[in-house]
Amino acid sequence: MNSEVISVRTGSRRAVHDLTDQASQFVRERGDGLLHLFVPHATAGLAIIETGAGSDDDLLAALEDLLPADGRWLHRHGTPGHGRDHVMPALVPPYATVPVLAGRLALGTWQSICLVDLNVDNPVRQVRLSFLTG
Amino acid sequence: MNSEVISVRTGSRRAVHDLTDQASQFVRERGDGLLHLFVPHATAGLAIIETGAGSDDDLLAALEDLLPADGRWLHRHGTPGHGRDHVMPALVPPYATVPVLAGRLALGTWQSICLVDLNVDNPVRQVRLSFLTG
Amino acid sequence: MNSEVISVRTGSRRAVHDLTDQASQFVRERGDGLLHLFVPHATAGLAIIETGAGSDDDLLAALEDLLPADGRWLHRHGTPGHGRDHVMPALVPPYATVPVLAGRLALGTWQSICLVDLNVDNPVRQVRLSFLTG
Repeated sequence: MNSEVISVRTGSRRAVHDLTDQASQFVRERGDGLLHLFVPHATAGLAIIETGAGSDDDLLAALEDLLPADGRWLHRHGTPGHGRDHVMPALVPPYATVPVLAGRLALGTWQSICLVDLNVDNPVRQVRLSFLTG
Repeated sequence: MNSEVISVRTGSRRAVHDLTDQASQFVRERGDGLLHLFVPHATAGLAIIETGAGSDDDLLAALEDLLPADGRWLHRHGTPGHGRDHVMPALVPPYATVPVLAGRLALGTWQSICLVDLNVDNPVRQVRLSFLTG
Repeated sequence: MNSEVISVRTGSRRAVHDLTDQASQFVRERGDGLLHLFVPHATAGLAIIETGAGSDDDLLAALEDLLPADGRWLHRHGTPGHGRDHVMPALVPPYATVPVLAGRLALGTWQSICLVDLNVDNPVRQVRLSFLTG
């Protein structure tokens, strides 16, 4: 299994960060297999959605609505409401898998692989990319 | 990696479409490994749930409640409220993985692999099935 | 593919049950590859979250809020509200994948692999662990 870690700057705001270019680069010339992405963080997830047409902000708004950043959470430290950031990976998991054919991601036209990071206290994130030849 | 694409007719209504038979067929005689399913669409997902006892409609009702098809979404085109269809794959991802043993899906008794398609404007969907021997 | 099933006692209360130690044990001395976890049940899921600091109970509370155990569900049998347990695996899927490097799970410091079981009627659950060498 080929595996490497990349660093991603998500900044100090809630972010949907497109990783597709870096993932495409990683699988280039690897033939057929499966790309596995993994975020080794407890307050980030991976989503495969369309970007650049509003859905990235729509996802952040939906998460704000489904997991409000208020005082309800038992897990308390850091920024107020931060407890909900720790629940998010149960719904938006820290892994994703995408088929690779002849060194190309078999994504649909409108799909991008995105890091979802609600945590405003960690501006830099790691993402592990692994390739399984199957 | 063995990989092929099947076409699925989900029609012009919101649908939970059972793919288990086609997936079982695909892995037959392949021995031990992992089945990977992938939907190359930005408004569909895959869920492993019980079908035929109400839970398929319960899932559609829950998604209606969690991601209402109203005017809140920035992503606007097609049927009103369609923006929420683009958020769904962050919660119901476009991939799924199931162990295969001796050419059989190692699903539980009540589990079915389902395509979840909220988008009423795309009656036919693609699903990529891939088999990793591990 | 190496694959085995373990039994987990989740008891008769809603539970987030940490599987990390058993998963670590399973991958020990296996080198590099991918750990695949699968729950062959229609009312349980797997989540990778922090445990022991409140987030396990926060997740149960969030699921209570997102999928209320009330009379809205078509799927009716067992404990009242049980229908929502059957919707949960669409949001908290019954599979998870974690990279393994030199026989160690490549989890982040605060990540644990957890079985999420809302179903109070099934005190013992199965989890299938599989290792792909890629």
